[in-house]
Amino acid sequence: MQACNRAIVARMDSPVALIPQLAAHLVAAGGKRLRPLLTLASARLCGYRPDPAAIIPRHVGLAACVEFIHTATLLHDDVVDDSQLRRGLASANAVFGNKASVLVGDFLFARSFQLMTEDGSLKVMAILSKAAATIAEGEVLQMATQNDLSTQTARYLEVIHGKTAALFAAACRVGAVVAARPEAEELALESFGTNLGMAFQLVDDALDYAADQAELGKTVGDDFREGKITLPVLAAYEAGDESERRFWQRVIERSEHIDDDLDHAMALIAHRDGIGVTLARARDYAHAACDALAIFPDSRLRRLLGDVALYTVSRGR
Amino acid sequence: MQACNRAIVARMDSPVALIPQLAAHLVAAGGKRLRPLLTLASARLCGYRPDPAAIIPRHVGLAACVEFIHTATLLHDDVVDDSQLRRGLASANAVFGNKASVLVGDFLFARSFQLMTEDGSLKVMAILSKAAATIAEGEVLQMATQNDLSTQTARYLEVIHGKTAALFAAACRVGAVVAARPEAEELALESFGTNLGMAFQLVDDALDYAADQAELGKTVGDDFREGKITLPVLAAYEAGDESERRFWQRVIERSEHIDDDLDHAMALIAHRDGIGVTLARARDYAHAACDALAIFPDSRLRRLLGDVALYTVSRGR
Repeated sequence: MQACNRAIVARMDSPVALIPQLAAHLVAAGGKRLRPLLTLASARLCGYRPDPAAIIPRHVGLAACVEFIHTATLLHDDVVDDSQLRRGLASANAVFGNKASVLVGDFLFARSFQLMTEDGSLKVMAILSKAAATIAEGEVLQMATQNDLSTQTARYLEVIHGKTAALFAAACRVGAVVAARPEAEELALESFGTNLGMAFQLVDDALDYAADQAELGKTVGDDFREGKITLPVLAAYEAGDESERRFWQRVIERSEHIDDDLDHAMALIAHRDGIGVTLARARDYAHAACDALAIFPDSRLRRLLGDVALYTVSRGR
Repeated sequence: MQACNRAIVARMDSPVALIPQLAAHLVAAGGKRLRPLLTLASARLCGYRPDPAAIIPRHVGLAACVEFIHTATLLHDDVVDDSQLRRGLASANAVFGNKASVLVGDFLFARSFQLMTEDGSLKVMAILSKAAATIAEGEVLQMATQNDLSTQTARYLEVIHGKTAALFAAACRVGAVVAARPEAEELALESFGTNLGMAFQLVDDALDYAADQAELGKTVGDDFREGKITLPVLAAYEAGDESERRFWQRVIERSEHIDDDLDHAMALIAHRDGIGVTLARARDYAHAACDALAIFPDSRLRRLLGDVALYTVSRGR
């Protein structure tokens, strides 16, 4: 991970000073670096042995590439959602403005493709460029379902698959690709990543109606204020009586908010067990993620990856 | 070009309905398709003969790819500049909103990289992914120089090289790459593209203070209102007396605008021959573009490409 962090910092550089400045703001904000970690761990699980002569081993370069794609989407997300906080700190758009965030996001996207090109594997490029397109599709679909309480759960799951799980899946799969392992291992790691990503986003969506801001590092109720359709809301709406449905229609569909609406929404979600429903699904995905690893021989690393999946859903308890 | 237009429409498709809808808005708006035309013409100038068995010939697929990169940057530009018009029609952000424009731009970027991956040439990918990064750097640099009258002409030229000429250059160069021609021909076409792109942007910047809106298909004075630093302004500012400089400082640096400021700005630019200075430079680049083609044997196509360069600067007369 240290090598990956060095690669990230080195390749965020540009003669245009604002680019490394804005990038440093994001690097300073830390973040879990979960996606590049998945690439590194997947490569190792597949027994990848880097060329000792390589200055930057392939899996490290690709881990940095995955983080660049993720960072670019974060920058654009925060613009699209008009978010003021990211991981408890002022978001890049709040500090540098929306314009800079859009353009530096574009730069990081382009740089990620330069990193892939340097890696030189067409297979890796196909996986990551498809993931990048799927992320954008997921984000557009999320926007299209915003404020729409008739959204089906299946559609919601499609959104989070696109916006989150696709990159988790690709991050894992490229680990198997660099190790030149049989396709069954690629697909197993892709499945692990997909299920982990689904679990991760479901928990995130539950926390938006459950955790306190300091713990979460973001403003609780963001999804609520934006009229985002997430499972806690869908569950509470579908199970709700007439008056509860009228409440949800006012706050989510018509975005008419008054004081205490968020508290009332959280109470209704608790009453209809929206958090429980969401976390139960997250746990199913987490277990599916663990199961996907079964084709690999038992090892400390395999157990660790399984634990990551289980830890992800324990965030929601 | 018809094959290229078909490829563009086919590959803009997505199960997420808003993506082809927004894309169709851009396709309907037309546009000159100058960049993909450059790829097609460059490939042909280099004697490229497509594989007769290919469903989409390589140069056609790459021409579509170049147009996708361009369209993605247009979508993001219009968001960044808050433009309401594009080619005389309502801009995509004006119709579909900024969020959709940011996200569909990201989709088109990702799709362009999928098209490159399908083409399969690492050399092409290196050229186009570098161009994409350079475009973003140029756009960030433009943002950083906004409202800053101390910007040097060299810096302004760097901005337009990044935001415009880099993709013209890449579009031309990949034409030589698919034809597997010697590097000298690649470099000649890259130089042609660079110089043509510089000429093209200089004329565009001149027209923003000269043409009427119907002719230009965009609002005159956009650059003025945004405090964009372009050569007509730099030339008028540098040649201006005390009172002229105070005017420019108020309108460009402090963005304090009153009625008739644009008319006064155009009068001052005319007085200091800012348009003439800009177009003279554009003509120099256009001639350099023609000269770069000298290594190719004389042909109808070579003369046609030269004429494109000369026509570009004739727009400004």
